[in-house]
Amino acid sequence: MAVKLGILAGGGPLPGYLVEACRASQRPVFVVAFEGQADPNVIGDTPHAWVRLGAAGQALDHLRAQGVGEIVMAGPVRRPTLRELRPDRRAAKFLGMGLLNKGDDGLLGAIVRALEEEEGFRVVGAEEVLADLAAPEGPFGGFQPDENVAADIAYGVKVLRATGPLDIGQAVVVQQGIVLGLEAAEGTRALLERCGPLRREGRGGVMVKLPKPGQETRADMPAIGPETIRAARDSGLAGIAVAAGATLVFERDKVVAEADEAGMFVIGIHPGDFLTDNDPAS
Amino acid sequence: MAVKLGILAGGGPLPGYLVEACRASQRPVFVVAFEGQADPNVIGDTPHAWVRLGAAGQALDHLRAQGVGEIVMAGPVRRPTLRELRPDRRAAKFLGMGLLNKGDDGLLGAIVRALEEEEGFRVVGAEEVLADLAAPEGPFGGFQPDENVAADIAYGVKVLRATGPLDIGQAVVVQQGIVLGLEAAEGTRALLERCGPLRREGRGGVMVKLPKPGQETRADMPAIGPETIRAARDSGLAGIAVAAGATLVFERDKVVAEADEAGMFVIGIHPGDFLTDNDPAS
Repeated sequence: MAVKLGILAGGGPLPGYLVEACRASQRPVFVVAFEGQADPNVIGDTPHAWVRLGAAGQALDHLRAQGVGEIVMAGPVRRPTLRELRPDRRAAKFLGMGLLNKGDDGLLGAIVRALEEEEGFRVVGAEEVLADLAAPEGPFGGFQPDENVAADIAYGVKVLRATGPLDIGQAVVVQQGIVLGLEAAEGTRALLERCGPLRREGRGGVMVKLPKPGQETRADMPAIGPETIRAARDSGLAGIAVAAGATLVFERDKVVAEADEAGMFVIGIHPGDFLTDNDPAS
Repeated sequence: MAVKLGILAGGGPLPGYLVEACRASQRPVFVVAFEGQADPNVIGDTPHAWVRLGAAGQALDHLRAQGVGEIVMAGPVRRPTLRELRPDRRAAKFLGMGLLNKGDDGLLGAIVRALEEEEGFRVVGAEEVLADLAAPEGPFGGFQPDENVAADIAYGVKVLRATGPLDIGQAVVVQQGIVLGLEAAEGTRALLERCGPLRREGRGGVMVKLPKPGQETRADMPAIGPETIRAARDSGLAGIAVAAGATLVFERDKVVAEADEAGMFVIGIHPGDFLTDNDPAS
């Protein structure tokens, strides 16, 4: 029998997909659901415990008591209040207080390291549990970026490469060589919504969403789903480019169907291929 | 008598301040007001002509017919439609079509060069006409950033230095070492509005607004005014940092009064002073 999977559940649908996958393969599973983050409807009747974000000691006690061997961190954690983050003794020990002022990447990377090195769990990425969730290479549906949009993708890649080390730039929207918006703490949906009215007339523009260089993708992998497609369509974008193999695609059938219906492309790229000496910003 | 000033007027209050300054010094002035950009209430009864953005030939004919010697470009041009930009023959000649796909900096820099080198005008910055509009060094009012906020300012400077060469990042909002938002095409007010709900509880966070490295400040200098202070206050920020000598401060008395009343600092910095090996991102 497979080792028991512990899901540290933030928001969104990913914890639910992981639970389903475990059930389908009869793998035992336990969810540590973070208060104010995880969606009770997604957790449902799966064996679980609710824990405050800062209460690492409690979370670890649950995982140990349940005999969990592997851990997956699933779903975004919207920026918590300091009260929610207030570390218990265990959290204080393995985090060190300075981390609260780190960006996401620093914090999540430290948590993954602590879980593995200090606490003896194996931390796996969601795409290891759900192999078919990783973005494939090339166009997902019936549409492809044209030459102009490909240039915008290249510029988007360049922008994200420059901003990633600053722990910003999960996603960027580019149209005709101009950056309409760059995501920082507001989330991808807010980015897409504000870029609609900033576009030049006519369908056009692309959202590029990539992991940051060095991002701890086991804790935080970029994700898209049908809602992303709808938000991009409502903003009039021509399509979306994501990193092949390093993006979670939820409900891919629906993603493809909705993109095709909207006449939009969704494409898995290898970002390095788009970095040339010849891009529009050089 | 001073040489006649031609104001190429985009949006906002700056063209009006320039007209007032000319009147106060009895300097002759003529406004070329761009359709869909300039505010008719700001232009008022000053001698002027309305011109489509792309109609460079018409704009130049007006400036010549009026005997204008110096030109100042004043006020932001919100991203125009392609129809508004459609160049007349003169514009096509001196712009070259590729420029439409450049970011603001490339486009404005090319326009300034063309006006000076090809058309023989002198292009001056708004702060040359309105010397007391340039941001002074140090705190404008009664409040100063504390040590933590100073670290956020340093991080903001670092972010803007990295993003400026990509023609994004007019302004950034940082709180406790985390970038809440970075301005691209949406404008400073939209940036401030979305960062309010993204802040951790308690007053805190700073907006840093700087010229981009190499920005053609004669055509496009960063500006703040009382509305900026109000938007930052409504988003709960601790204050605003701008580049001393390279930012226009509209209605400084009001800026200071409103910042003081809100308990906020506004400070003119030399960005280079904030770049150390020791900043929170390194």
